[in-house]
Amino acid sequence: MSAEKCLAKGSAAPGPVPKDYIRVYSMRFCPFAQRARLVLKAKGIKYETINIHLKEKPEWYLKKNPLGQVPTLETPAGEVIYESPITCEYLDEVYPEKKLLPSSPFAKAQQKMMLEHFSKVIPYFYKIPTGRKNGEDVSGLEADLKEKFAKLNAYLVNKKTKFFGGDSITMIDYMMWPWFERAEAYQFKQFLDGTPELKKWTELMLQDSAVKAIMFSPDAHKAFFKTFLDGNPDFDYGL
Amino acid sequence: MSAEKCLAKGSAAPGPVPKDYIRVYSMRFCPFAQRARLVLKAKGIKYETINIHLKEKPEWYLKKNPLGQVPTLETPAGEVIYESPITCEYLDEVYPEKKLLPSSPFAKAQQKMMLEHFSKVIPYFYKIPTGRKNGEDVSGLEADLKEKFAKLNAYLVNKKTKFFGGDSITMIDYMMWPWFERAEAYQFKQFLDGTPELKKWTELMLQDSAVKAIMFSPDAHKAFFKTFLDGNPDFDYGL
Repeated sequence: MSAEKCLAKGSAAPGPVPKDYIRVYSMRFCPFAQRARLVLKAKGIKYETINIHLKEKPEWYLKKNPLGQVPTLETPAGEVIYESPITCEYLDEVYPEKKLLPSSPFAKAQQKMMLEHFSKVIPYFYKIPTGRKNGEDVSGLEADLKEKFAKLNAYLVNKKTKFFGGDSITMIDYMMWPWFERAEAYQFKQFLDGTPELKKWTELMLQDSAVKAIMFSPDAHKAFFKTFLDGNPDFDYGL
Repeated sequence: MSAEKCLAKGSAAPGPVPKDYIRVYSMRFCPFAQRARLVLKAKGIKYETINIHLKEKPEWYLKKNPLGQVPTLETPAGEVIYESPITCEYLDEVYPEKKLLPSSPFAKAQQKMMLEHFSKVIPYFYKIPTGRKNGEDVSGLEADLKEKFAKLNAYLVNKKTKFFGGDSITMIDYMMWPWFERAEAYQFKQFLDGTPELKKWTELMLQDSAVKAIMFSPDAHKAFFKTFLDGNPDFDYGL
């Protein structure tokens, strides 16, 4: 099913999840929800999407996920799973087709450690644009982010592989991708000029069929992000 | 091997990990490192412990784990694994004896969501004692913590089981235990009076052989914690 307008406070709760389907509660421009949607798409899982108004959350949604965040998965049995890394690992375990996490415990632990490091990069994607908007000096933050990109670049150089888990796309690539998809919209793209291996990785990611199926254009990201920074996010932008 | 005095800046790097052993870099009073040590003990894994001076970290340690935190695992092959939930899951996958995580993907996801909720409780264990020491009004923080204990209690009541994953101890219990072991030392024990199921859980945990083998007395925790709050932690207290 295709993405639809978001459901807000006062909306009716959706019915049970159809047999043979899994449901993802999402927000079209949320990078965390995008992780789960990339995994659903890459693995060819049959799913339906319900978009949530993250500023005026439906009462029924907060009963399913008390944290009120996206993504959340729901199964036909009514099981609910949230937190993006947990949803992605759950999907990879339940649907054996096209395994995205390595089977070796150490290789899997390496991907999780990488994700932990990457989680410390994410805040810069918000702090810098917010600072710029407020006319603050963000040169220190920009230098920090460039250094973090350099570390990611060095990781690829040392590993001598095209992707972060090897020479084909694995889970860790999908977990990091959503923020790089927004690099142009967030005006970070020039930072990649100093990190050629990382830049090459973004180019290869753009050729992936799941990435292509789920992505928004830089213009769409830019338009949504403007409404987000203005404090009044247009979750249905473009619909 | 038994716990030894911590290694600090300037110390010589330890040699390779002996065959058939795994090494855990720890700090005797660190609740995060205790998670890994509980799992090592509960599963009967042969391990050696190297304690790290967390205020003056050895240069060689920062090369193994750039975050410089404990726990870190090291294998005879020189593989390094850090971040407590990642180390615990790694141990459970590599050592098949006495599985601590459920095999069902949903049950496993539930334990991880629970851990995510619990990770938001942990800061209170530091904010309240620090506030008390500084003579601040911590009644609001205490009310918050009591409410969080009430939610944990309600979880056990709804689940109708003795432990958080069922009627026997599983991973999630060991992940949460270290902070409850410190409840008396941190002067939180009276908070459990309003949450009888949670209190009963702490009593059952105290009967577990891995918990008993790894634990410190309330007095030892109290003595270490005093040095910690004073800004000069005595990592070798009692040795």
